[in-house]
Amino acid sequence: MRALVYDGQLHYQTNASQPQPTGDQALLKIRKAGVCNTDLEIVRGYMGFQGIPGHEFVAEVIEGEARFVGQRVVGEINAACGKCDICYLGIPSQCRHRTTVGIFQHDGAFADFMPLTGRNLHMVPDTISDDAAVFVEPLAAAFQVLEAVHISPRDKVVVIGAGKLGMLVAQVLKLTGADLSVIVRREKQAKLLANWGIRAVRREELADKQAHVVVDCTGVADGFADALNLVMPRGTIVLKSTYHGLPQADLTRVVVDEIRVIGSRCGPFDTALRALAAQQIDVESLIEARYAFADVLTAFDHAAKPGMLKILLDF
Amino acid sequence: MRALVYDGQLHYQTNASQPQPTGDQALLKIRKAGVCNTDLEIVRGYMGFQGIPGHEFVAEVIEGEARFVGQRVVGEINAACGKCDICYLGIPSQCRHRTTVGIFQHDGAFADFMPLTGRNLHMVPDTISDDAAVFVEPLAAAFQVLEAVHISPRDKVVVIGAGKLGMLVAQVLKLTGADLSVIVRREKQAKLLANWGIRAVRREELADKQAHVVVDCTGVADGFADALNLVMPRGTIVLKSTYHGLPQADLTRVVVDEIRVIGSRCGPFDTALRALAAQQIDVESLIEARYAFADVLTAFDHAAKPGMLKILLDF
Repeated sequence: MRALVYDGQLHYQTNASQPQPTGDQALLKIRKAGVCNTDLEIVRGYMGFQGIPGHEFVAEVIEGEARFVGQRVVGEINAACGKCDICYLGIPSQCRHRTTVGIFQHDGAFADFMPLTGRNLHMVPDTISDDAAVFVEPLAAAFQVLEAVHISPRDKVVVIGAGKLGMLVAQVLKLTGADLSVIVRREKQAKLLANWGIRAVRREELADKQAHVVVDCTGVADGFADALNLVMPRGTIVLKSTYHGLPQADLTRVVVDEIRVIGSRCGPFDTALRALAAQQIDVESLIEARYAFADVLTAFDHAAKPGMLKILLDF
Repeated sequence: MRALVYDGQLHYQTNASQPQPTGDQALLKIRKAGVCNTDLEIVRGYMGFQGIPGHEFVAEVIEGEARFVGQRVVGEINAACGKCDICYLGIPSQCRHRTTVGIFQHDGAFADFMPLTGRNLHMVPDTISDDAAVFVEPLAAAFQVLEAVHISPRDKVVVIGAGKLGMLVAQVLKLTGADLSVIVRREKQAKLLANWGIRAVRREELADKQAHVVVDCTGVADGFADALNLVMPRGTIVLKSTYHGLPQADLTRVVVDEIRVIGSRCGPFDTALRALAAQQIDVESLIEARYAFADVLTAFDHAAKPGMLKILLDF
């Protein structure tokens, strides 16, 4: 089969061996996939991952439970043991023995075929296009902000980092009725936010220490530092992106201002599917470009340029 | 009057001018004071403070509201404006225009006399000794951990940093019924904890990622790094101490494990007074040494030695 393989270098292969599902795994034929910033980090060495990356996808089930075969599905990316204390707490995404599709010890979706435990599959309603379905994984992660922190309709909320994930987080937070501002540096993002009725601002338009909640989607140390400037005493900072290396962080400010800093990761797929089916979230406008999978290396180069939104791969 | 003054250097003065209370301030005659790690940080430049340090004290009111005059009092250290949005949220300790006794733009208690707004005073019941009353401020800060996070009696809780504040935090957390461990490096601390029925452990006795809540009282970057190792996914780290400089912090771990990091500062004086009156907390055992105020410079040297508990100053 065709596959993108990372082994310290990135290779497009046409003769990769087709995976065999084991145990409760289904075998998925990938229909479409998306390139995430985590993929770009992985090819810089993040998590020490080697294998096939890719964790945003829509696929057809070709082997597995009868109710799934022939169906269009999306899949949660954490393959849990189902037996550890964290699984029994009902948090399989944090399973102590998990593998993670395309990120940690589990081959991903940048290939013609991928095995995945049937427990992780969600059927995609006909009303949701393949394009939109690729956004289920990052949109679920955006909804996870609302799992991490209660946002009141009275709250002032600021999103920093109006990239692929930040633009989804902004649309999710808009649903809360909160007083939302998104810091932008590019006109493209500002226009999209305006279309959605979301206030786009430049950093200098916001006063310090006024926001109840700041969501940092930047993944850089400067973003966290600015989140500390923007949040009010006793306010909350939600961290939505992983950071390169070990950033310096003003923990003293966290203490003195009694800030809450909450990490947030993978989210609820069923919520994301409901929101897409109800057309509450616009993902089509976030598509930057489409590539045939054979051009995946070019697609990665495109995705790595500054300010790019979602790059889709067609299989 | 006598005063300890920091102006880049630390001076003991016998001819400092006696302060005049203004507005709603009472004038306090200090009876006894305690040396806190923050005082030691201040004389290394923390907060850029200049003036008279000292914020743990018991005093007699010699001028002010009639109901206070002649009474023994302790005093909250944040002098709030009473008019800003944060004050109106009922959080005067985080007032946007506050000064802080002995820490920020407000002279402190290492002097014969100190002015302080009457709103910050709490009368000390006769059943609480002067020695014990000096601990009201840090004990209130210890109770603030329970304001920051709900600790369930089922939780595994770990305290790192068994110093002056950590030993108070440990006693407060013991009250929750939680499964509490305190990491110690010195036999003195281990013995005290054993007296209180609190489990003292060496770091190597604790497995990683098992604690629901970790309270970091170390104030050093290594302490935060270790808190990240000890806390379980979706767990909480409470930061109780300010940090020197800008520590490197593994924010990616915060995201991936969905950790909550909560800063915690000054706490409820009335709670601390109730707990002392009810003899729920042993503070007498935390007294390392006593000095006459005239020997305050020697007392500071003593307090700065590793592993020291509370140094008291008698006026």
